[in-house]
Amino acid sequence: MRIGEILEAKSTRDVVTIRPDAGVRELLALLAEHNIGAVVVTSDGTTLEGIVSERDVVRRLHSDGTVVDNTVAAIMTTAVETCGPDDDLDEVMATMTARRFRHVPVVADGTVAGIVSIGDVVKHKIGQLQFERDQLDSYVHQG
Amino acid sequence: MRIGEILEAKSTRDVVTIRPDAGVRELLALLAEHNIGAVVVTSDGTTLEGIVSERDVVRRLHSDGTVVDNTVAAIMTTAVETCGPDDDLDEVMATMTARRFRHVPVVADGTVAGIVSIGDVVKHKIGQLQFERDQLDSYVHQG
Repeated sequence: MRIGEILEAKSTRDVVTIRPDAGVRELLALLAEHNIGAVVVTSDGTTLEGIVSERDVVRRLHSDGTVVDNTVAAIMTTAVETCGPDDDLDEVMATMTARRFRHVPVVADGTVAGIVSIGDVVKHKIGQLQFERDQLDSYVHQG
Repeated sequence: MRIGEILEAKSTRDVVTIRPDAGVRELLALLAEHNIGAVVVTSDGTTLEGIVSERDVVRRLHSDGTVVDNTVAAIMTTAVETCGPDDDLDEVMATMTARRFRHVPVVADGTVAGIVSIGDVVKHKIGQLQFERDQLDSYVHQG
């Protein structure tokens, strides 16, 4: 299964993004509004500059004792592991579990095309494996 | 696959817990130290009183503009969905994806026995389904 198929299946195709010069208060509002854990950071709406997550907020709050007066740029992760729409779900999944990422942005032709969460991965990988197992099972039992 | 098998396979069997009267600063340190996203809340180390996550911190920071002067009790989630060691992974997984939980505490005989994260679920469910599919596949192709 390709990453592009997962993006197509998502209920909303719009990627939630934020500008790097936005404040953390705006980020908190965006996370709450969409009930999500991470947002893609981009100045022009297309070029990926980073990703910023609940974890980035909580870690900065821990290290500095305060976080809301920062910009998104000050707390975001810039060394972002990305994937493309033609990448295989299995490989992206392996990266997520090995490196403990919960979100991987999808970039196509230099443009942010979406974000894949560990929840998306669970849903689709399990669906795929159950389908394959059921097919083999019915093949075995039809004889 | 039962939840108990997942707990047994985890690299550390110790459950990270925090007291409800602990401060949020202590919680932030604990999350950073163990590189985890949620902690079980208990006064006596055995009785589950709640669960507190990065999301609880971030949401309170959004609604109040500040969070570090709170106790864990003030921000934790008390209506916790739990599971038992004999529960089936599939059912717990279905609850997690449907209700968007990332962590489910495991309670055995009224005592906190562990916590299962969505990362644990991905790892084990995928391993199980691949094993079943491979077994059927080799059965089909041996004839």
